[in-house]
Amino acid sequence: MLVQKGLVVWFTGLPCSGKTTITIELQSILRKRNLLTYILDGDQVRKGLNSDLGFSEEDRAENIRRVGEVAKLFADAGLIILVAFISPFKKDRDQVRNSLPKGKFVEVYVNCPIKECEKRDVKGHYKKARNGEIHDFTGISSPYEPPKNPELELKTDIESLKDCTDKIINYLVKSKLIS
Amino acid sequence: MLVQKGLVVWFTGLPCSGKTTITIELQSILRKRNLLTYILDGDQVRKGLNSDLGFSEEDRAENIRRVGEVAKLFADAGLIILVAFISPFKKDRDQVRNSLPKGKFVEVYVNCPIKECEKRDVKGHYKKARNGEIHDFTGISSPYEPPKNPELELKTDIESLKDCTDKIINYLVKSKLIS
Repeated sequence: MLVQKGLVVWFTGLPCSGKTTITIELQSILRKRNLLTYILDGDQVRKGLNSDLGFSEEDRAENIRRVGEVAKLFADAGLIILVAFISPFKKDRDQVRNSLPKGKFVEVYVNCPIKECEKRDVKGHYKKARNGEIHDFTGISSPYEPPKNPELELKTDIESLKDCTDKIINYLVKSKLIS
Repeated sequence: MLVQKGLVVWFTGLPCSGKTTITIELQSILRKRNLLTYILDGDQVRKGLNSDLGFSEEDRAENIRRVGEVAKLFADAGLIILVAFISPFKKDRDQVRNSLPKGKFVEVYVNCPIKECEKRDVKGHYKKARNGEIHDFTGISSPYEPPKNPELELKTDIESLKDCTDKIINYLVKSKLIS
């Protein structure tokens, strides 16, 4: 039997801001504490569950709605579910927050200046977006709405990976979401 | 850390054939063996993830596709995921089977004569379907295609709940899917 509490930790931020990197490191730390976690990643889900969706505003909303529902199921199963999605629109994120019991949604704003994100972009997506080869690209040709009151904000251009995961762990312990 | 193997146990059968009852009892038995499980139930998922879908053949296919993808994520997380869905069409079930690694999809045909299912129908859905108040109702106004080679077949009109769960546990142990 799991003795932990189910929980959704939701990472939002620009492409290449560091969301996936942080979730992978955080998962490793939580595992050492014997906590059962799972990562839902935008790239993975868009190849499977949401392979029928594109990048229009409507499809992005549906993308996030479905991921929110899946995250809810995982949290209901007792897992700590780490969601790494750009999730650019406030209303879509808030819809997920409001569909969960109070305190079960921890929004982490992975804040990184776009210039820094572009530097890190090994796949060249930003460049393609600037050249018009990729459409509806968040930060370039599609807006990103930062959270107004996230539970946590991580500045990945000036804070190290360890700084970031320390902040998250401290928050989860302080809020009695993990022991 | 979980020491168990992730796995999808998929229950298909007519409405009121006994799918949900069996998954709840099976979950209880697996929990006593310290195995982590989760139930995905048609009614629950249609209120959340698949609330945008109806009961046309196309929507039923999409219903099963999405549930299959979610079940895959849970199995990937290491859980034994018990799926209780009418899932009337063979091709939709086979699509889920084929998307999973060999041996990770255990199809359980919950076989019960429709007359018996109708007797058990406390919500009166069959009656409403026969009166034409509910459309596309499996077994009445929409077809059910029984599996040809399911891993297990349970005859819930003549086998007790204990018979059914014993058969499943024996199969899982024999197949080394649980220890």
